[in-house]
Amino acid sequence: LRLKAILFIADGMADRPVKELSWKTPLEAARKPSLNQIAKAGICGMVDPIASGTPPGSDVATLALLGYDALKVYSGRGALEALGSGVKVQPADVAFRCNFATVNQKSVVLDRRAGRISNEDATKLARSLSKVKLRKSLNADFLFKNTIQHRAVLALHGPKLSTAVGDSDPEKVGEKARQVKPLDSSFEGKRTAKILNGLLHEFQKVLKNHPVNEERLRHGSPPANIVLCRGAGTIPNVKPLSQIYGVKSACIAAAPLVRGVCKVAGMKLMDVKGATGTPQTDYMAKARAAVQALKSCDFVLLHVKAADVASHDGKAKQKIDAIENIDRMGGYLLDKVGLDSTYLAVTADHTTSTVTGNHEGDPVPIAIAGPYVRRDDVEKYDERSCAKGGLGRIRGLDLMPVLMNFLGKTKKFGA
Amino acid sequence: LRLKAILFIADGMADRPVKELSWKTPLEAARKPSLNQIAKAGICGMVDPIASGTPPGSDVATLALLGYDALKVYSGRGALEALGSGVKVQPADVAFRCNFATVNQKSVVLDRRAGRISNEDATKLARSLSKVKLRKSLNADFLFKNTIQHRAVLALHGPKLSTAVGDSDPEKVGEKARQVKPLDSSFEGKRTAKILNGLLHEFQKVLKNHPVNEERLRHGSPPANIVLCRGAGTIPNVKPLSQIYGVKSACIAAAPLVRGVCKVAGMKLMDVKGATGTPQTDYMAKARAAVQALKSCDFVLLHVKAADVASHDGKAKQKIDAIENIDRMGGYLLDKVGLDSTYLAVTADHTTSTVTGNHEGDPVPIAIAGPYVRRDDVEKYDERSCAKGGLGRIRGLDLMPVLMNFLGKTKKFGA
Repeated sequence: LRLKAILFIADGMADRPVKELSWKTPLEAARKPSLNQIAKAGICGMVDPIASGTPPGSDVATLALLGYDALKVYSGRGALEALGSGVKVQPADVAFRCNFATVNQKSVVLDRRAGRISNEDATKLARSLSKVKLRKSLNADFLFKNTIQHRAVLALHGPKLSTAVGDSDPEKVGEKARQVKPLDSSFEGKRTAKILNGLLHEFQKVLKNHPVNEERLRHGSPPANIVLCRGAGTIPNVKPLSQIYGVKSACIAAAPLVRGVCKVAGMKLMDVKGATGTPQTDYMAKARAAVQALKSCDFVLLHVKAADVASHDGKAKQKIDAIENIDRMGGYLLDKVGLDSTYLAVTADHTTSTVTGNHEGDPVPIAIAGPYVRRDDVEKYDERSCAKGGLGRIRGLDLMPVLMNFLGKTKKFGA
Repeated sequence: LRLKAILFIADGMADRPVKELSWKTPLEAARKPSLNQIAKAGICGMVDPIASGTPPGSDVATLALLGYDALKVYSGRGALEALGSGVKVQPADVAFRCNFATVNQKSVVLDRRAGRISNEDATKLARSLSKVKLRKSLNADFLFKNTIQHRAVLALHGPKLSTAVGDSDPEKVGEKARQVKPLDSSFEGKRTAKILNGLLHEFQKVLKNHPVNEERLRHGSPPANIVLCRGAGTIPNVKPLSQIYGVKSACIAAAPLVRGVCKVAGMKLMDVKGATGTPQTDYMAKARAAVQALKSCDFVLLHVKAADVASHDGKAKQKIDAIENIDRMGGYLLDKVGLDSTYLAVTADHTTSTVTGNHEGDPVPIAIAGPYVRRDDVEKYDERSCAKGGLGRIRGLDLMPVLMNFLGKTKKFGA
């Protein structure tokens, strides 16, 4: 009998009590019989994705939930997002998350998303930007790729690059796009800032009179006349899961940042038709893909973004809808995988508060059902119920060893 | 009033739910009124001996339960086992666990235990092996001692030795005994491998036509015609408990590995007649010895191996028997020590699964009874009950400070 595991991560699903839900959390308020069934069949607890009180991004939380010490290995967002978007990032490359945006003549940001530009327009612009040539004396080149709507990624390639550079994106409408500044006095930092500023300047020249933007102006749409960068990052230096645990693993996720982390972990990235990383995703297609992937893999990470999106927008009702869709996925998994040979773990990568609209540092619930767990008394999957569970309170990076231990994949220490 | 403590460690007693026990664990299925009484009178919790999900050996687990950071100080099994077997190992020595084994003419292992050779035969062989002379130019000597049946220990003594050498024991019947290889490119590693290979070769020559083996062959017993080595180790560099906590301490254990750890911790090793480190041990003699030792000591570690042996053999019923014997020891302790002045802590050094037969990384239950513990609601001593206890989930190396704190032996940090 080959034991397997699914780690089902619902992005931002954990929350705080919400007044309009009579001080229940969205998880407590939602109808979620399948998640409850997993909690009831399993051992439950709470997870601090990074550390008590630390609000994590989805990148570091996913790194932690895959067993990596994110505090040590995390090296910025950019490379993870670029990798997850299908850009070939190499170990010494420095990559950035980018936005197509709209600025006025004084470089003041008017719209950080260029009117949520269409994929079609963004693709045409990106094609033109990719033709920009860096001066040969800079001894560097780049890859630029648009992803969804205004989103894009940029990877710089060449010797002596550094992540010690600031953002050009002020992340606020009404502020000026920034010159990228080195964050330390190293040669590499200065060089990287110089290359990036030069490149962004060239980009701006190409965008200025681009036919796509002229067309947008004619239709009253904000032109995508600047590329804003943030989150300089390199690929984290980690061993793949296959090497650490000897498992074959796959990832079902649409969010580029999560895909990037899974790529770094050496997981096979599955493409699922209809999986969008939005509340309009095809939930059941992802659940089906996870069950399918489990046939050839020992470990499958299944990630759904929708609950997080609703929380950021402060929409408790929409978050409950997302949770109920996630519950249906849980039902499908329960129906299709045998808990006599498969461990099914459900958690969130972090708490996102529907009230503050932010990631918060509160711990998240975890339930693990499967053949040899020490089943506890918890009967519901939510923040308060799981806090009474037999797992107690563990750290994010402890979860993967716990799962791999159930699969017999952790190495003994000592004799 | 002088406060004292007994740490009662039942090796491998923790387990996972077992189908043939109606999904109870052996602890849950056993009749164990005294262990329950300790839980009921005390504060309970769960311990990760090393880290969540990490299956520990008894050596590193015991180091951790004595308060040492095993991940930092552990330096291999060999020296601990040799020390625990009464061999004088010095700080720079490199020691090994050995087996008398049987190989064919092509050095393929036929029996890793030479038919579980008797202590008597092994002693005669060891006496001959001890007379082997290493070439003077090697500038090294050795101690070899048989312990129980096929088991033996070997300590190499001399300058510039290293633990960076592989095992000669392939740990599998049907495979060839290995040449010992250096694990790094250091002079010390190469030198140690050379000395060891030379010595094992000499051993083989002595064993070949040894009268004991000729006698064994005549009776159809497998000859002990090779010594297999594994687990190169040095003495871990740790402070004794007396220095850390100012306590006088003693150890009641038969298992050499555990005795070795206690020796390293500066504990007095008590010899108990009838204590064998097997399920046939004299349980009550050990309990009596612990109570006796407590008269002159502040802290006594009482270790029983039997439950672990039963788990490795996959025998749930035998494990329950061992637990019920362990419970009788608990009853004796409760009867003889006053909980108004003595803390009585019961735990396991690791989970051993009766299903997989392996050490597993699941946490182990802990109960601490004594005058000033914050008694909780837990009424039974088992994995699931203790998970609801007031201690929560702690690490192995946290336990000793917790106990020593109750004894008033921990130092204040800060002002």
